[in-house]
Amino acid sequence: MSYQNPVFIPGPTNMPETLRKACDMGTIDHRSPVFGKILHPCLDGVRKVLKSEQAKVFIFPSTGTGGWETALTNTLSAGDGILAARNGMFSHRWIDMCQRHGLDVTIIDTPWGQGLPADRYEEVLKADTGHRIKAVLATHNETATGVKSDIAAVRRALDAANHPALLFVDGVSSIASMDFRMDEWGVDVAVTGSQKGFMLPPGLAIVGFSQKAIAATMTGTLPRTFFDIRDMTKGYDANAYPYTPPVGLMNGLKLSLDMLLEEGLENVFARHHRIAEGVRRAVSAWGLELCAVSPDLYSDTVSAVRTPDGFNATDIVTRAASEYGMAFGVGLGDVAGKVFRIGHLGSLTDAMMLSGLATAEMVMVDLGLDIKLGSGVAAAQDYYRHGSGTAAKAAA
Amino acid sequence: MSYQNPVFIPGPTNMPETLRKACDMGTIDHRSPVFGKILHPCLDGVRKVLKSEQAKVFIFPSTGTGGWETALTNTLSAGDGILAARNGMFSHRWIDMCQRHGLDVTIIDTPWGQGLPADRYEEVLKADTGHRIKAVLATHNETATGVKSDIAAVRRALDAANHPALLFVDGVSSIASMDFRMDEWGVDVAVTGSQKGFMLPPGLAIVGFSQKAIAATMTGTLPRTFFDIRDMTKGYDANAYPYTPPVGLMNGLKLSLDMLLEEGLENVFARHHRIAEGVRRAVSAWGLELCAVSPDLYSDTVSAVRTPDGFNATDIVTRAASEYGMAFGVGLGDVAGKVFRIGHLGSLTDAMMLSGLATAEMVMVDLGLDIKLGSGVAAAQDYYRHGSGTAAKAAA
Amino acid sequence: MSYQNPVFIPGPTNMPETLRKACDMGTIDHRSPVFGKILHPCLDGVRKVLKSEQAKVFIFPSTGTGGWETALTNTLSAGDGILAARNGMFSHRWIDMCQRHGLDVTIIDTPWGQGLPADRYEEVLKADTGHRIKAVLATHNETATGVKSDIAAVRRALDAANHPALLFVDGVSSIASMDFRMDEWGVDVAVTGSQKGFMLPPGLAIVGFSQKAIAATMTGTLPRTFFDIRDMTKGYDANAYPYTPPVGLMNGLKLSLDMLLEEGLENVFARHHRIAEGVRRAVSAWGLELCAVSPDLYSDTVSAVRTPDGFNATDIVTRAASEYGMAFGVGLGDVAGKVFRIGHLGSLTDAMMLSGLATAEMVMVDLGLDIKLGSGVAAAQDYYRHGSGTAAKAAA
Amino acid sequence: MSYQNPVFIPGPTNMPETLRKACDMGTIDHRSPVFGKILHPCLDGVRKVLKSEQAKVFIFPSTGTGGWETALTNTLSAGDGILAARNGMFSHRWIDMCQRHGLDVTIIDTPWGQGLPADRYEEVLKADTGHRIKAVLATHNETATGVKSDIAAVRRALDAANHPALLFVDGVSSIASMDFRMDEWGVDVAVTGSQKGFMLPPGLAIVGFSQKAIAATMTGTLPRTFFDIRDMTKGYDANAYPYTPPVGLMNGLKLSLDMLLEEGLENVFARHHRIAEGVRRAVSAWGLELCAVSPDLYSDTVSAVRTPDGFNATDIVTRAASEYGMAFGVGLGDVAGKVFRIGHLGSLTDAMMLSGLATAEMVMVDLGLDIKLGSGVAAAQDYYRHGSGTAAKAAA
Repeated sequence: MSYQNPVFIPGPTNMPETLRKACDMGTIDHRSPVFGKILHPCLDGVRKVLKSEQAKVFIFPSTGTGGWETALTNTLSAGDGILAARNGMFSHRWIDMCQRHGLDVTIIDTPWGQGLPADRYEEVLKADTGHRIKAVLATHNETATGVKSDIAAVRRALDAANHPALLFVDGVSSIASMDFRMDEWGVDVAVTGSQKGFMLPPGLAIVGFSQKAIAATMTGTLPRTFFDIRDMTKGYDANAYPYTPPVGLMNGLKLSLDMLLEEGLENVFARHHRIAEGVRRAVSAWGLELCAVSPDLYSDTVSAVRTPDGFNATDIVTRAASEYGMAFGVGLGDVAGKVFRIGHLGSLTDAMMLSGLATAEMVMVDLGLDIKLGSGVAAAQDYYRHGSGTAAKAAA
Repeated sequence: MSYQNPVFIPGPTNMPETLRKACDMGTIDHRSPVFGKILHPCLDGVRKVLKSEQAKVFIFPSTGTGGWETALTNTLSAGDGILAARNGMFSHRWIDMCQRHGLDVTIIDTPWGQGLPADRYEEVLKADTGHRIKAVLATHNETATGVKSDIAAVRRALDAANHPALLFVDGVSSIASMDFRMDEWGVDVAVTGSQKGFMLPPGLAIVGFSQKAIAATMTGTLPRTFFDIRDMTKGYDANAYPYTPPVGLMNGLKLSLDMLLEEGLENVFARHHRIAEGVRRAVSAWGLELCAVSPDLYSDTVSAVRTPDGFNATDIVTRAASEYGMAFGVGLGDVAGKVFRIGHLGSLTDAMMLSGLATAEMVMVDLGLDIKLGSGVAAAQDYYRHGSGTAAKAAA
Repeated sequence: MSYQNPVFIPGPTNMPETLRKACDMGTIDHRSPVFGKILHPCLDGVRKVLKSEQAKVFIFPSTGTGGWETALTNTLSAGDGILAARNGMFSHRWIDMCQRHGLDVTIIDTPWGQGLPADRYEEVLKADTGHRIKAVLATHNETATGVKSDIAAVRRALDAANHPALLFVDGVSSIASMDFRMDEWGVDVAVTGSQKGFMLPPGLAIVGFSQKAIAATMTGTLPRTFFDIRDMTKGYDANAYPYTPPVGLMNGLKLSLDMLLEEGLENVFARHHRIAEGVRRAVSAWGLELCAVSPDLYSDTVSAVRTPDGFNATDIVTRAASEYGMAFGVGLGDVAGKVFRIGHLGSLTDAMMLSGLATAEMVMVDLGLDIKLGSGVAAAQDYYRHGSGTAAKAAA
Repeated sequence: MSYQNPVFIPGPTNMPETLRKACDMGTIDHRSPVFGKILHPCLDGVRKVLKSEQAKVFIFPSTGTGGWETALTNTLSAGDGILAARNGMFSHRWIDMCQRHGLDVTIIDTPWGQGLPADRYEEVLKADTGHRIKAVLATHNETATGVKSDIAAVRRALDAANHPALLFVDGVSSIASMDFRMDEWGVDVAVTGSQKGFMLPPGLAIVGFSQKAIAATMTGTLPRTFFDIRDMTKGYDANAYPYTPPVGLMNGLKLSLDMLLEEGLENVFARHHRIAEGVRRAVSAWGLELCAVSPDLYSDTVSAVRTPDGFNATDIVTRAASEYGMAFGVGLGDVAGKVFRIGHLGSLTDAMMLSGLATAEMVMVDLGLDIKLGSGVAAAQDYYRHGSGTAAKAAA
């Protein structure tokens, strides 16, 4: 009698049944031509989702964290300089990885809830006249705070400084859900995973390398084998992998890409925006505020909701799970206990989202918060509903 | 991007994934002992759900309609008298079947929305001093109107008339969701299907025969082969079927029974009641009324909601499907266009139900009904929520 | 560690995984337009498999036995004359059904292993100058004996007698595996099920009615409701069913039809013939004989293999199941203990068939039969193998 | 009409349907207690399969190659000495990985087809009086040659030299299929994956660390983050992962472990041995030889079969796939074109194996090899069959 409710964690997402069935595949010979018919559509489709003409795409049996490591170890050498802003748990972790790999990170500490400060990036890059900095890290969507940053602005910072550093972007919780423009933004390595916008189980690190990033692999001396894109490149050219590929998950990815591209990326993004905006209206109706400090930063995949001082936001997540069988996300790191997170990405309908909002309301009332039952739901309904609903009017 | 929302038709229901996986079974030899390990737990488990010690259970690859035909053709002969009240589409159809099989039906026409009139049954039975009436039909839960009738009262009518007629009960939309007491109520044939309280795909007619009903199969002369329980009996005794059994569905039924009995029938009924009561509170908050005319008749599996005069209730169902991808039930027969139906049986959570109520509200507002968004949801939330919610207080 | 081997019972067959996934479908509203997109392709596709331009197809949640009952009860009246030959268990059972429905059957008893005697049909029909006989039954493929009969010859018998009786054909174990020509052979009702040539789970009776058979439904007075094609017709016209349709199974049927028609019916038949011929070569190499008495009668879907006198053929089936986890078919009725049956229909490859033959050999040697291990396998391999294998030469 | 045949590649293996269904799991919150109920049974069960009391088990979303990298990067520092024998493609690749990570490998080149030379290990270790060598690599089962080596003998070599180096064992194609004794053999890191003996899809690196290996993680300075067992340890203690865990695959692993331990490891090994021995009898009947040069080296999970000089063994694999839809393994590296490989591990029955042997025979005859159809099958049947079959006599 369980596992029936949708989940509202910020990934892994709810999965369409067709994708689950595509992943649940019998064993094939991954050294046979059949595998090529799964591999190449995956590579091509991801490139389209990245909005890139020139990127080389690599798919590892791993996770987004492995994707970060792929970016670093293929292009950099011990002691290389890195520039990164830290505005949440995931940007923090990528920085930590750099340090553990012997890279020298210049950290721009940024209050959680704010976006990446492009102006600060520009200052540091301009000051780095010796080009000690080899790569700039940017987290497109901070899953911990629900903050979407302006990657084009980071690119402009690099350009303004006329700095040759590579631009690495963590798009784990944005790619395939929110607009991402690898070529236009001059992204050198884009990192994502299977379990967010692609609506698949976890298990794939999906990365795109620009030609410039690929060139850097010739000089990078950090040790690497599992994540070495040179072996991958050699394999792909022969329809193969340097080790056993995750065939079923890739078969799911192939279908996911078909679905996304058939729906149209802009429609996918609009759908995410619409559902997210309904959530934001609900939050506002509850009299609560988002962690993200201004509307331009609002993420369309996850909302981190601040709860009143003295209230432990994690209680909401715990109680939703134990009493109502529904999963939300806890606050992490600096905002642990201060926010709870509502994931609203991937395979989701208005009706499913409303069940999440309605459940959150019950939990908050149970816990004594001054929330009116139905208030957030009504605000979201008013936005979602067709006819003369707000979203419809906005779209008109 | 579809098929994600739960359904709110009054069956087939939402299915637990474990049951779907149990049904999705590879081919086995249905003449091997393995089949017996599926068959007999099904028969035993259904008997428990029927609350019978003595019934023989039969499972046909068919539907509830086939179950009705099983009841009639195994026990009756052309020209036999039948007594039945007609208070909805499903009681109507069973009567029609009797007539097509050459049975002579005394019909007690009853306004749709009312329950079976036990006093009228008693009158007719007392008047039938020659015992021309061989069977009494009773629809436990009229799926068309959301009306639950009092089967014990029908039994008392038979007893008061000291009448030997068999009592056949249609429990298609009640059994395994609402209390059903085959032995205590003296039911001679109980009929149900796989796709309601058992939360399975359609495809099984499930019937229980009392010893008295089995005895009647010796004298009944209506032609029958596919639905002949004598062949079934002979087969079951040898772990077999007279034809190819629906092994996968039966494997699902076996697991469904395990789940229901492990949860406890009374808990299953209480769960249905709780979810149903939340729906009724929402209906009331909308200012609407149920088709069922009094609280003692309210069904815990389906609510038929009357819409205002001049409004076509079917528009709600049509628009919910086309605009929101959600399925409700239309009104049938006498109440077509006057009611829409909300199914709330089978595999369902409070959160899922709230998504149905929230969607119904959006549709009704879209269509110009004077409904306040969030109002029904709030009423249901207030009932559903734990802590000091109404249901919790009621349970305390 | 079980259920891994293919099955070699004469149905239900091994199922392609894609079909199982199509059947394993979440709940949809069967009263919505979505259902029509499953229903009508099923009806159209079956018509093509029947090689009919004019037939009306009906699909019941039932089995082939229910299909037989559909044929009889829709077109006939109590006391009507029937002509049928009995040459196996399944022709026997259909005759028995006729008798239980009050029909008056003229039985042409025919030794099991022989085909339907068209000359005897002709004699009886010519003698029936009063046209007391309303329907002629013909079992296209006797699953019990592995005998395929000549339906065109039965039609010629009717024509030679200039007799107006309807021709009902049981094609349960032939249709979609062996050539079947409803229009060309003048078949009035064709009966099959989901679990044989369609490679689906059991649970569907699939019938085709000629216009002449449909006309007969106006006069037939046998009682019927569940199997009444008038209700079905009315339903189909409105994209609906008179009761809850087996949506998942029908979704599987839709895909099965796509697969069969894409492969091409003649290719499907040739595939069945090729696999069957390999089995027959193996049987011959074992020094055993088929129940079917002459090559023109050999069924391409099932082979009934005679074992030596004094040997209980059923022991083979029992031991194969208990020791090797493999399912073959026992002998039924008159040939119980005298034959075991190898099903070779539906979703099957040469390699799978060879595993069945190899296992049968081990079992027979275990049981003391004078069989050389590998002998039957080698004979089948020689036929199956490409290059200059016999089947390849035959096809060339 | 495809994907029906079993595969005979040396992994990924044929998968039991129950495991596939366990992997095909809806999304749960991996930060909730539910995840701990999957994680810990996996860790405990793997420890039992490794026959270790003291090992710490780690499970990464990766492959066996990632497991190798886990072993190296957690315990070693750039420039550390490694001792390894190279007797096949997989030992070669692990050595290559060492070199790419800046380790200094002493390579004992060994002809492909031979086992690891424990005596040579001992010589080198005795000569390394300065203990420059920090780790010894040993490939338990060379998947490329079908050679099983004696790990206990390698341990004795270490002990005879009284050398403190760590012992790392690649058990990717042995663990859970052949006897593996982590504690008894003094293995410090054991590496395997999900797609071989565990009968799951690829996607998991599964490693066991001895306490001595864990101690070495304090001093090892190779950069690592994704594969860092310190993060994993911290995570596991909190029922969590340092990144998104592959929940579905782990749910499958949990069930796989239950199945293996219920069957009993010794029974699992005996089953693999029996099936493998049948294959070897078939190879012998064909007049061919294994790549493995002596019976003590014969692998029970994969047989590499040498074909006659001048014949391209890869043609067998190509033709089996294109003409018969069956997958075998090609020769790799030094033995490319000289051998083809028959995988016989994981979820397999005698009957399935016979279908592989029968198909291989057809292919070889097609290609002009002097093989008698049925000969290998007969030899395997004679071994497999019960009653007085050879395997039965051997077991008696």
